[in-house]
Amino acid sequence: MMRTRPLKVALLGCGVVGSEVARIMTTHADDLAQRIGAPVELAGVAVRRPSKVREGIDPALVTTDATALVKRGDIDVVVEVIGGIEPARSLITTAFEHGASVVSANKALLAQDGAALHAAAEEHGRDLYYEAAVAGAIPLIRPLRESLAGDKVNRVLGIVNGTTNFILDKMDSTGAGYQEALDEATALGYAEADPTADVEGFDAAAKAAILAGIAFHTRVRLDDVYREGMTEVTAADFRSAKEMGCTIKLLAICERARDGASVTARVHPAMIPLSHPLASVRGAYNAVFVESDAAGQLMFYGPGAGGSPTASAVLGDLVAVCRNKLNGATGPGESAYAALPVSPMGDVVTRYHISLDVADKPGVLAQVATVFAEHGVSIDTVRQQGKDGEASLVVVTHRALDAALTGTVEALRKLDTVRGVASIMRVEGE
Amino acid sequence: MMRTRPLKVALLGCGVVGSEVARIMTTHADDLAQRIGAPVELAGVAVRRPSKVREGIDPALVTTDATALVKRGDIDVVVEVIGGIEPARSLITTAFEHGASVVSANKALLAQDGAALHAAAEEHGRDLYYEAAVAGAIPLIRPLRESLAGDKVNRVLGIVNGTTNFILDKMDSTGAGYQEALDEATALGYAEADPTADVEGFDAAAKAAILAGIAFHTRVRLDDVYREGMTEVTAADFRSAKEMGCTIKLLAICERARDGASVTARVHPAMIPLSHPLASVRGAYNAVFVESDAAGQLMFYGPGAGGSPTASAVLGDLVAVCRNKLNGATGPGESAYAALPVSPMGDVVTRYHISLDVADKPGVLAQVATVFAEHGVSIDTVRQQGKDGEASLVVVTHRALDAALTGTVEALRKLDTVRGVASIMRVEGE
Repeated sequence: MMRTRPLKVALLGCGVVGSEVARIMTTHADDLAQRIGAPVELAGVAVRRPSKVREGIDPALVTTDATALVKRGDIDVVVEVIGGIEPARSLITTAFEHGASVVSANKALLAQDGAALHAAAEEHGRDLYYEAAVAGAIPLIRPLRESLAGDKVNRVLGIVNGTTNFILDKMDSTGAGYQEALDEATALGYAEADPTADVEGFDAAAKAAILAGIAFHTRVRLDDVYREGMTEVTAADFRSAKEMGCTIKLLAICERARDGASVTARVHPAMIPLSHPLASVRGAYNAVFVESDAAGQLMFYGPGAGGSPTASAVLGDLVAVCRNKLNGATGPGESAYAALPVSPMGDVVTRYHISLDVADKPGVLAQVATVFAEHGVSIDTVRQQGKDGEASLVVVTHRALDAALTGTVEALRKLDTVRGVASIMRVEGE
Repeated sequence: MMRTRPLKVALLGCGVVGSEVARIMTTHADDLAQRIGAPVELAGVAVRRPSKVREGIDPALVTTDATALVKRGDIDVVVEVIGGIEPARSLITTAFEHGASVVSANKALLAQDGAALHAAAEEHGRDLYYEAAVAGAIPLIRPLRESLAGDKVNRVLGIVNGTTNFILDKMDSTGAGYQEALDEATALGYAEADPTADVEGFDAAAKAAILAGIAFHTRVRLDDVYREGMTEVTAADFRSAKEMGCTIKLLAICERARDGASVTARVHPAMIPLSHPLASVRGAYNAVFVESDAAGQLMFYGPGAGGSPTASAVLGDLVAVCRNKLNGATGPGESAYAALPVSPMGDVVTRYHISLDVADKPGVLAQVATVFAEHGVSIDTVRQQGKDGEASLVVVTHRALDAALTGTVEALRKLDTVRGVASIMRVEGE
């Protein structure tokens, strides 16, 4: 059953992930051939710096002209691991035009231009696979696109950024503050010199857009995703969380509204109960929790980054795309038929954990409670601690619209008896 | 792009899972049509008792003649949710011969006759999908077969039986004994009146055979799987586990030998560290932990049984098989090219936690330690507790061949100073 003419693969980018893809293609060549039904051959590698020594890669395959490589016409599959918007976007589009299917690990590009790229793939009858773009090695996009294809996903709750999970886990286990935990993450190589994309939630927001799109069969753009970073989470927040039987995670949350008529996508730190499977996701690991009508609660856990894990995801896609090529078929394309509107953050239903510094005198609680009532927000628990004329009030609300909750907080800030809002944290996963 | 002629589905069995499959096919008809690219139609339902009222199923579709249904020739996909070996096996083979692909949830049949069924599917150019056969709704077979297709799996460690996990979790959290926890599981419907298949590990062993086959591209028969039940796990074992920072789970373990030249598959209770992701799998949930060369450590978690979750897995397969039909293609078939030998239990490398009742007199420890040394088993820790002329010795070994460990235990039993072996438990997941 084995075809002898090899399928030709062009590799765009040969950094940490690309070189690992090339290495596995060589060392596992027989395995890959068995799984595909034909051998695969590395037919070209486009790089920026051709002089750099690349172990195990035939120098004759290396080129700086990525465009010429994807235009060759004999390439079956282009593997894009350059990252960023351009030239990746143009190269992928050109690859489709010249007969190749594409495997990409590019979350930024998929989050921004997924719709256009899917349309280009479909127009030319090619595949566009991108398992590696979300949560590294964790098989997630394929299960959502295929295994749950007969089910209805209602919510996706994910730890999709390893850097921030490492920092928050460190804060949780050692009582360290944000800066101290970040410094350790940087020293250990878990955080980049400029950690903005991770700690401000940009990376997680791109993944949330991709996940929401696949989960709800709806186009969700990066701009549709509400985003809050985790730089303001404090050691005190972790102490509050512990008192609630919770920990704090930076979550990407994609939800279908109760009435099913709209969806939301957001990234922010949140308290989740210690009993929730996501609470025990440690270090730089990622995990995505999926709630669906029929399957119930599923979780997918694994390393969210790194050369080898990402290469594993790329190769899984490569096998699928090669098999499709041999069959003269394509896999499931973009599925946006549901076309649900994406609602703003104010429409999200959530709970707030609010810490207030208040004057320690009679009537303060009554004043504060009145503000909640005026905004239609029902209070679950209040804890009051006073000392030396100062007091703190910790209020945990019942579920309410985020707009009502933010409105409540604004009104609380205006009360004379409220000296300050020490922290606000959403409570999720219950 | 939508084809209007529907794909025809025959349903064999209409119990808890079958009726849920039929229900979702009706309620999600539009969604399924979108995801497949053509509508799907329930063309016949084979049952044993036609008189039973089946809500939402057209009585005209119901038949007791399953063989005639699968022979009709116009059926595109047969969904087999009867269970058991016969008539399921004959019906599936007949379906292949008459043009249909098959989606099955039948773990017993797949574990026993998977090779023959895969061969029949391939001979006739049909698909055989069975995501629902292992770990219910958890997308597991597809990730192993497809997402990790470019990777090399070294170990699969799974909680694949919800009944026994419920019992063990109850023993862990309440200190209850086995019988008490089993009684509660029975009362709540988590255990059947005759729980043998679950508590003796037969159900988990069938799943281990299927998982090992897929993970290692090797045929693993049910008889190849070493099996120990969990009926002898005691409250005292859980106390010992807690002292070790562990809990106890019934694990299905499939491993590639260090030299890569053979594999093993086994089911038995084992201590695992509380820090291991499998340790926090509660209640009747299932989870499968996969270790591979490139992806690293992955875990898949979800409900392992139940009508809706199983139906979700069946429908995911149904969508894939229908898409393949439309493409005139088939998905990945059996992959047994590696054909590695399956080694017996004695070749497994593991650790033992052994509790001995011994005479409380000088020299006992020296005697016991000598027995370990004679069998080439190195001791990690020893804990000795004495009172009133009786004493207990708890020995935890380093990693050794299971054959050497069982040999050690046999020799210990023969020592005059050893009054009895209170418990033996393997330690895994480190």
